[in-house]
Amino acid sequence: MQTLLLNSDDVHDNCQMPELISAIEDAFAAYETGDAQMPPKSYIDLPQYNGDFRSMPAYLDAGEWDAAGIKWVNVHPDNGEKFDLPTVMGTMIYSDPENAFPLALMDGTELTMLRTGAAAAVATDHLAVEDATSMGIIGAGVQSYTQLRAISEVRDIEEVVVSDLSEERVARFIDTFEGEFDVRAGSIAEAAGCDVLSTVTPVEDPIVPREAVGDHTHINAMGADAEGKHELADEVLLDAKLVIDDFEQTTHSGEINVPYNAGVLADDDIYGQIGQIVVGDKAGRTDDDGITVFDSTGLAIQDVAAAHVVYEHADDNDNGYPFDLLGLAE
Amino acid sequence: MQTLLLNSDDVHDNCQMPELISAIEDAFAAYETGDAQMPPKSYIDLPQYNGDFRSMPAYLDAGEWDAAGIKWVNVHPDNGEKFDLPTVMGTMIYSDPENAFPLALMDGTELTMLRTGAAAAVATDHLAVEDATSMGIIGAGVQSYTQLRAISEVRDIEEVVVSDLSEERVARFIDTFEGEFDVRAGSIAEAAGCDVLSTVTPVEDPIVPREAVGDHTHINAMGADAEGKHELADEVLLDAKLVIDDFEQTTHSGEINVPYNAGVLADDDIYGQIGQIVVGDKAGRTDDDGITVFDSTGLAIQDVAAAHVVYEHADDNDNGYPFDLLGLAE
Repeated sequence: MQTLLLNSDDVHDNCQMPELISAIEDAFAAYETGDAQMPPKSYIDLPQYNGDFRSMPAYLDAGEWDAAGIKWVNVHPDNGEKFDLPTVMGTMIYSDPENAFPLALMDGTELTMLRTGAAAAVATDHLAVEDATSMGIIGAGVQSYTQLRAISEVRDIEEVVVSDLSEERVARFIDTFEGEFDVRAGSIAEAAGCDVLSTVTPVEDPIVPREAVGDHTHINAMGADAEGKHELADEVLLDAKLVIDDFEQTTHSGEINVPYNAGVLADDDIYGQIGQIVVGDKAGRTDDDGITVFDSTGLAIQDVAAAHVVYEHADDNDNGYPFDLLGLAE
Repeated sequence: MQTLLLNSDDVHDNCQMPELISAIEDAFAAYETGDAQMPPKSYIDLPQYNGDFRSMPAYLDAGEWDAAGIKWVNVHPDNGEKFDLPTVMGTMIYSDPENAFPLALMDGTELTMLRTGAAAAVATDHLAVEDATSMGIIGAGVQSYTQLRAISEVRDIEEVVVSDLSEERVARFIDTFEGEFDVRAGSIAEAAGCDVLSTVTPVEDPIVPREAVGDHTHINAMGADAEGKHELADEVLLDAKLVIDDFEQTTHSGEINVPYNAGVLADDDIYGQIGQIVVGDKAGRTDDDGITVFDSTGLAIQDVAAAHVVYEHADDNDNGYPFDLLGLAE
C-alpha cells in the first residue's frame, strides 16, 4: 500500500469538470444535511512575512462515497515580486476515512482553482437564467480561467467579456479562449451587464456599482477572502437574492463581511445557503428574481470532494507516482 | 524548486537525537516566550469507523531558525486487526514560513515517535536526578523505543526494566536493546522504582500505584492522549512536582485530565509548564524534590521543530526524493 503523489498536471488531468461540479454539489448537500464535518479554518498569521497559513480539514459522506482530508494553504501577497512564486499555494493530504491511510498527496493550488470554478458553476446552475449565453469576468488572474471553464458546463455561454486593469492579463485570457468563445475585452459595466458575472479580484473598495448590473444578472462574487475585502457595491447585495456558501465564513471574510459587520446588511438580507438550494429546501432562481448573488468563500468540503474526484481517476488511470511514505509497503 | 519527499526511513536517518532534543527544547522555549503560534488541535470524529483525525498546525521562531508546518494524524484503534495498519499514522507538510513553499512532505508517524521521545528527554534532563542510571518503561509498544533512545542521551542509563502484559512485546524490546543496556523484564513496581520511568500505555485505569514509585523517581507520563485516559494513581500526581507541556491540552486529554476534571487535582497542584523550566523562569529538580512527573500530550510545535531537523539534514545529505508537486520547477 503506497501513497499516490499527484502534481499539478495530474490534478488538472484527473479532474474533469462535469464530474467535479457534481461532486461539489454533493458536498454542499452533505454539509446542509449534517453529513459533513468541517472544523473552522485555523490561521497562522505571519505579519513579519506579510503572509498567513490556513488549515482546512474536512470529512463528508455523500452517500455513495465518503472522503476525508486536509488542505494547507497560504496567502503571501509579496511572493510574486520577492520569490517569483504564486501568492497562494496549497498542499492536499487525501485520506481514507475508514483507516486514515494517506491515499494521496496532491497539489492543492490547481485543486483550489478547479473546485472554486466548480462552486461557481453549481451556484450558476441554480441561480442564473436558464438561457444565459453571455458571461462577464472581472479580474483576469489565475482564478478566472476555471470560472469560464466551469460555468460553460452548466450554461451555453457564447459571448465573454473580460475586464482587468492589466492589458497583459486580458490578452492572455483572450488568447486562451478565443477559439472556443466570442471573447473580448470590455469595461466593468459591459462585463456586469452579461447574464452571468464572476468577480475574481482582491479589491477592498467595491468596483461593481449597482447601475452597472444587468436586470437578471447572476453574480458569482469569488474574490473576497479576508476581512475588509469586497467587490460589489452594497446596493447590489441589498437588491439581490443573496446566497452564501457558509454563514460563519462569509460574515467573517466573504463578500458580505464589510456591510454585514457595518450593520448595512443584516441576516434578513441573506436568502440562504447554497446547500439549502441544492437539497431543495429553498428555491433557486424563480421568474420573479432579478439580480442574484453567490458569495463564495471556499469550503474545506469542496477541497475534499475535488480530491476525491482526482484520486479516483488517477488511481483508475495509473497516473501519479506511488510512494511508500509510511514504510508500510510489502 | 521542488518539494522533498521523505519516507519513514529518511525521517529516521535524518533526525539525530541530540540535535532533535535541542530543537524540542527550543520549541518549548519559543512557546513560553510567545514566539510560537499553535492553534488548538482540531478533531474530525468518525464514530462509524471508531477513529478520528487531528490537524496540528504550528509556527515557531527559535531565533536562529524558524519553521512552519502541519501534521495530519489519526487514531483508529481497530486498524491492526481490520487492516494490518498502525493505529496512528501521520503525514507532515513542512513549509518555508517566509513564502509558504512546501519544502517537504514527510512521514509523520516516525516523526511523532522521535519528537515524543525527545520531549521526554528534555523533561528528564531538567527533572531527573543528575546521576540517574536506571530506567523503567511501562508499555513496550512502538513509542517505548524512542523513550529509551532519547533519555539515554541526557542521562547515563545503564539498567533498564521493561514491563508489559505482552511477553512478545517485552522480548522484542529486550532483543533490540540488550547489546547496549542491561535490560530485563520486570513488574510495574520494579520499573517504577527506577531513577527514571516512562509510561507509554493507553490505559483508562491507573496502573502505577503510589507505593510503587521510587523516592526520587522522575516519571514521563506519555500515554494519555484522550479524555478518560490516565496511567498514574492520583496520589502520585498529588505528591509529585508536576510539570505539564500545555495547560489546555493536558487538562483536556493528558495524564491529569481525569483527576483535574473530577476536582481531585487543582491548578495549585501543577508546578508549571516545561517551557517555564526551559527558559529558567522556574527551577527544574532541586535537592528538596522527591517524585517529579512530566505530563506530555505532544504539541504541534514539537512536530514542526522535528521536521525542521529532518529537512535540514536531508537537504544537506541529498536524501529524499525531489518532486515538482506544484509544477513550478524550471
